[in-house]
Amino acid sequence: MSDRPLDALEASLDDPVTVELKDGRAFHGRLDGYDQHMNVVLVDTVDTVEVDSDARRVRDKTIIRGDNVVRIET
Amino acid sequence: MSDRPLDALEASLDDPVTVELKDGRAFHGRLDGYDQHMNVVLVDTVDTVEVDSDARRVRDKTIIRGDNVVRIET
Amino acid sequence: MSDRPLDALEASLDDPVTVELKDGRAFHGRLDGYDQHMNVVLVDTVDTVEVDSDARRVRDKTIIRGDNVVRIET
Amino acid sequence: MSDRPLDALEASLDDPVTVELKDGRAFHGRLDGYDQHMNVVLVDTVDTVEVDSDARRVRDKTIIRGDNVVRIET
Amino acid sequence: MSDRPLDALEASLDDPVTVELKDGRAFHGRLDGYDQHMNVVLVDTVDTVEVDSDARRVRDKTIIRGDNVVRIET
Amino acid sequence: MSDRPLDALEASLDDPVTVELKDGRAFHGRLDGYDQHMNVVLVDTVDTVEVDSDARRVRDKTIIRGDNVVRIET
Amino acid sequence: MSDRPLDALEASLDDPVTVELKDGRAFHGRLDGYDQHMNVVLVDTVDTVEVDSDARRVRDKTIIRGDNVVRIET
Repeated sequence: MSDRPLDALEASLDDPVTVELKDGRAFHGRLDGYDQHMNVVLVDTVDTVEVDSDARRVRDKTIIRGDNVVRIET
Repeated sequence: MSDRPLDALEASLDDPVTVELKDGRAFHGRLDGYDQHMNVVLVDTVDTVEVDSDARRVRDKTIIRGDNVVRIET
Repeated sequence: MSDRPLDALEASLDDPVTVELKDGRAFHGRLDGYDQHMNVVLVDTVDTVEVDSDARRVRDKTIIRGDNVVRIET
Repeated sequence: MSDRPLDALEASLDDPVTVELKDGRAFHGRLDGYDQHMNVVLVDTVDTVEVDSDARRVRDKTIIRGDNVVRIET
Repeated sequence: MSDRPLDALEASLDDPVTVELKDGRAFHGRLDGYDQHMNVVLVDTVDTVEVDSDARRVRDKTIIRGDNVVRIET
Repeated sequence: MSDRPLDALEASLDDPVTVELKDGRAFHGRLDGYDQHMNVVLVDTVDTVEVDSDARRVRDKTIIRGDNVVRIET
Repeated sequence: MSDRPLDALEASLDDPVTVELKDGRAFHGRLDGYDQHMNVVLVDTVDTVEVDSDARRVRDKTIIRGDNVVRIET
């Protein structure tokens, strides 16, 4: 029942995901799209910097360039 | 209703976007063009360094090399 | 009886592995998938920061982008 | 009236541009050539380090490797 | 009697090698596999951090992603 | 009268050039060869570290890997 | 009488070379092989850290991954 990384992203379309970046930030949103570079599109995005959990801002649509991504939790 | 990252950029042509760079700066402008590397062309560009929100300068046309980009908000 | 790196990952599907990242963290989980970039999918993931072994959090499914990976122990 | 990033460079040939590098320097000159990597050739080049605006030196022809480029203003 | 880098790895299969990483660590083990990216598979692996030669741990099989490698001694 | 970056290098073969590296050093020499990665071969090479202009050493032939290059002045 | 970078390496096979790495170290040895990534194989290798010229160790065969290389002197 294994799945390849892009299959796991495909299965998560329209679901909430957390995208952790190399700069330490994490963005929470609904996965609206992705491509083979792990560029992702999030909607209804909230970012959380772990050291300051009050610093939250809501955004419309965010395109994240894949080379910044450490992990995506689904 | 999902869309791939480059589709999201295509849909934002001529619209205002914010391009966040790896060096912490953000550039606001109208999206005049892009390519598959996420190289982008902005017109009517203003940059904002978050720690000093008064430091704003207006520019004509700015070509940003995609490997500097963290996120593009549309 | 040598095997190439992706063969070693294929042989470890559904087995527990430890993925060590460039930022010093290690993620333990069951290998649910991988691709030729060493992007990996882990399920039942636990992370361990060696300097603080109490900081453990359980997650469902984690997609790790391959360029963050130092080593995978099987 | 959108244009792709390399189209914007093509339109700026022989015009003055400012090339901002990842190390914080900016080079002003006339755009004499470019390629798909955003390698650029500048003539009549002057560099300006923003923290020390007096440090200017004139050069003949400068070939800048594209992976150093943050932005090109036209 | 010259040999190309991947030929040198092929000739070292099943032999003990030392893989030095960019983070300063070195892993000693038997070379069980490699590919064109210099991803390598080691078995019977021991790591040695030079500043603390007592910090040794034995592992079963280690897959090292090639972009972390500085040198491989055979 | 524009020229592409590799054309500018071709035109400078056998001429003196200065190759500036990302680590801050500059190497002066005669351009003996180059390729599409901006790997370059210099002969009669002298290096100058700007903070210590006395530290000059003469070398025979130096092959510089292109990804270290910031700029080449011709 | 120009030569491309890989031609310069080909001409140096079996000759002594110095390979300077991005981490500041230099390895001296006889060039036993290379490939198009500037991965190199050295035999009879000695390393010299310039700040501690006594720290020399002799090795048998060393495969250096090209992306660590700054310069190769022939």
